Amino acid sequence: MKVNAQRFLDSFKALQALFPEDGGDEGYNRPAFSAKEQQAHAWVSTQLQQSGVVVTHDPIRNTFGRYGQHGGPAIGFGSHLDTVNHGGLYDGAYGTLAALEVIRSAAEQALPLQRDLLFTNFVGEEVNPLGGTFGSRALTGQVPVTDNDYFTAAQIQAAQLAPQTYRNFLELHIEQSSALEQQQVTIGIPTAIAGIVRYEYQFSGAALHAGATPMAYRDDALVKASRFIQAVSQQARASSEQLVATVGQLSVQPNQPTVIPGQVTLILEVRAVDMQVAYQFQHQLDQWLKAAQIDYHVRKIVDKVSAQLDPQVQQVIQAAAEQRHDRYTKLFSGANHDVNAMSKIAAAGLIFVPSHLGISHNPQEFTTAADLVAGLQVLADSVYALATE
Amino acid sequence: MKVNAQRFLDSFKALQALFPEDGGDEGYNRPAFSAKEQQAHAWVSTQLQQSGVVVTHDPIRNTFGRYGQHGGPAIGFGSHLDTVNHGGLYDGAYGTLAALEVIRSAAEQALPLQRDLLFTNFVGEEVNPLGGTFGSRALTGQVPVTDNDYFTAAQIQAAQLAPQTYRNFLELHIEQSSALEQQQVTIGIPTAIAGIVRYEYQFSGAALHAGATPMAYRDDALVKASRFIQAVSQQARASSEQLVATVGQLSVQPNQPTVIPGQVTLILEVRAVDMQVAYQFQHQLDQWLKAAQIDYHVRKIVDKVSAQLDPQVQQVIQAAAEQRHDRYTKLFSGANHDVNAMSKIAAAGLIFVPSHLGISHNPQEFTTAADLVAGLQVLADSVYALATE
Repeated sequence: MKVNAQRFLDSFKALQALFPEDGGDEGYNRPAFSAKEQQAHAWVSTQLQQSGVVVTHDPIRNTFGRYGQHGGPAIGFGSHLDTVNHGGLYDGAYGTLAALEVIRSAAEQALPLQRDLLFTNFVGEEVNPLGGTFGSRALTGQVPVTDNDYFTAAQIQAAQLAPQTYRNFLELHIEQSSALEQQQVTIGIPTAIAGIVRYEYQFSGAALHAGATPMAYRDDALVKASRFIQAVSQQARASSEQLVATVGQLSVQPNQPTVIPGQVTLILEVRAVDMQVAYQFQHQLDQWLKAAQIDYHVRKIVDKVSAQLDPQVQQVIQAAAEQRHDRYTKLFSGANHDVNAMSKIAAAGLIFVPSHLGISHNPQEFTTAADLVAGLQVLADSVYALATE
Repeated sequence: MKVNAQRFLDSFKALQALFPEDGGDEGYNRPAFSAKEQQAHAWVSTQLQQSGVVVTHDPIRNTFGRYGQHGGPAIGFGSHLDTVNHGGLYDGAYGTLAALEVIRSAAEQALPLQRDLLFTNFVGEEVNPLGGTFGSRALTGQVPVTDNDYFTAAQIQAAQLAPQTYRNFLELHIEQSSALEQQQVTIGIPTAIAGIVRYEYQFSGAALHAGATPMAYRDDALVKASRFIQAVSQQARASSEQLVATVGQLSVQPNQPTVIPGQVTLILEVRAVDMQVAYQFQHQLDQWLKAAQIDYHVRKIVDKVSAQLDPQVQQVIQAAAEQRHDRYTKLFSGANHDVNAMSKIAAAGLIFVPSHLGISHNPQEFTTAADLVAGLQVLADSVYALATE
């Protein structure tokens, strides 16, 4: 399918021109539910209308653009325009602007298709008081139907989609990791979005005088925690399973140079596509702690199930990459995306392009124009294939 | 030398009776330079005067009680009455009330001595805005002679002692560690007070997405720091030198469950009697870090030299313990005490008694009455020996 790569690349500048205060070291600031997020949605709506696409909005401000008059289950694609504070240029915007280019190219060319295209721009994907991926979760009935600080229960109820609105859903995103870059591969095809399990561990010791207590009489909570942190890293690296495990948050009590740490509390996060793999990994760590005779308390604080992406849609993406001679690889997405929620109601797929050094949620976020365009083309070709098969 | 053990034990209750709001789970609150510290000093002064001891105060509120009219270098002993917030019953108070019992017993018995006794009660020993062991450092000329928030330069100048005011100085203190208790020994005879060297270490990594970044592509600052913390503990335990090493303070950036730690800053504290041992230990850790290919930055932030205690005074204390059939051991003091400053101007010694579980600076601080009295007796006998030799 033919798209206008230059217009697509220019569209980042056009979006940015709405917010002259953004960019540079400050990055981009379009928080969920803000006036700036709404302004960005309005700009996209205008672009769609100018290309002859029929635009609608739901009561919680998701934006839809439909091309085609078949009705029935459509081929959906899109992403979000909100950012974290001081976010990067590409996160959310890339998938949205690529989706814009795909649908307006189809509309301008009056491309004949078997199924309608449904551009979709979600509100509130980033962390926000109503929870990340708010817009897509609301569409798919995964948000409580009650009044909250932003919307009424009636609005949330009205946002739920009619069954079979979508046949497929595709999201295009930067990888937010460096695996593709390091493998020198242009297209990543996630097979699934990992589930997330978080555990709070507490290690206790005796908070005694750091000068007066000989080494032999110490019970140091931080020494215990540090052994655990190493075990987490070593065992995750050695694992034959597809998982990641991180101790990203840790606090020491009383945290004074002159006192042996009496307590350390940390969060272990495990992500895996197969939830049993995540649970089993944590069980293996518990066994290790027992064998190492380290006393601890643990409680599970988060348990988010994983999402499988559709194998046939993966095949369509792969065929598109092969046709364009793009190097590709299959992997899993550790990060969550709107496509996770959408996969509950449609056969869904995700497309990654490389992200330099894996930097994201940061003004330094960078992907080459060549990779951005390659991803756009694979999205366009995949959408066309699904809309005509 | 004969002392009144029951009066000594009762004196804790008499001191406490001045502050009915103190005690129990709240512990004791007589901060440095507070009205409550002054009230405690005034109470001690009254006790001394009632026993016929001549009381003086210097302009920074240290309290002195002299018994004997020889003049010349005296046998000094004492401690402090200020506490940390929510402190224990014994820290400071034990050495002060034992010194009170020794001098009033001598005075009441009109004990004939070759040298005068000089009860000494220091102000501001605990951590305070002018620095710990303030009173003893001021007496010994180790405090800058400038106006500060509490005293004028003239007052600090006037507090400096004339040369040869003291021939000896003895301090009695709870151990604040569990070495004596674990060895089932009643009397500890420190040979020195350890020096303290502190280093700030920074470990850097890449603060990438904890879900999106595969294990193989991670640069995790906390994993590096945890390896270092283990090396500190293992190498200090394995060392043949008398040293302790502690990582008591640590912070993680950005400290979020979903982000791989990008930076960890921690404080390494090393204490040893021989400063070269402390420096060498840190050097050894730096060699280990280089061999482990862990990148880091380090800077020295504290360098307090150690103090030797007088070998002949140690011998006097040992003889006193032997005469009373007390089990004793030599060790070094990791904690600092007023005797450190006093050792600069007098042949000085320190006496420890067991401290249950090593708990100190805490309402749970506890030493048995039998051990308190044993320490009092060793102090009394040592003072008598020094005053009559």
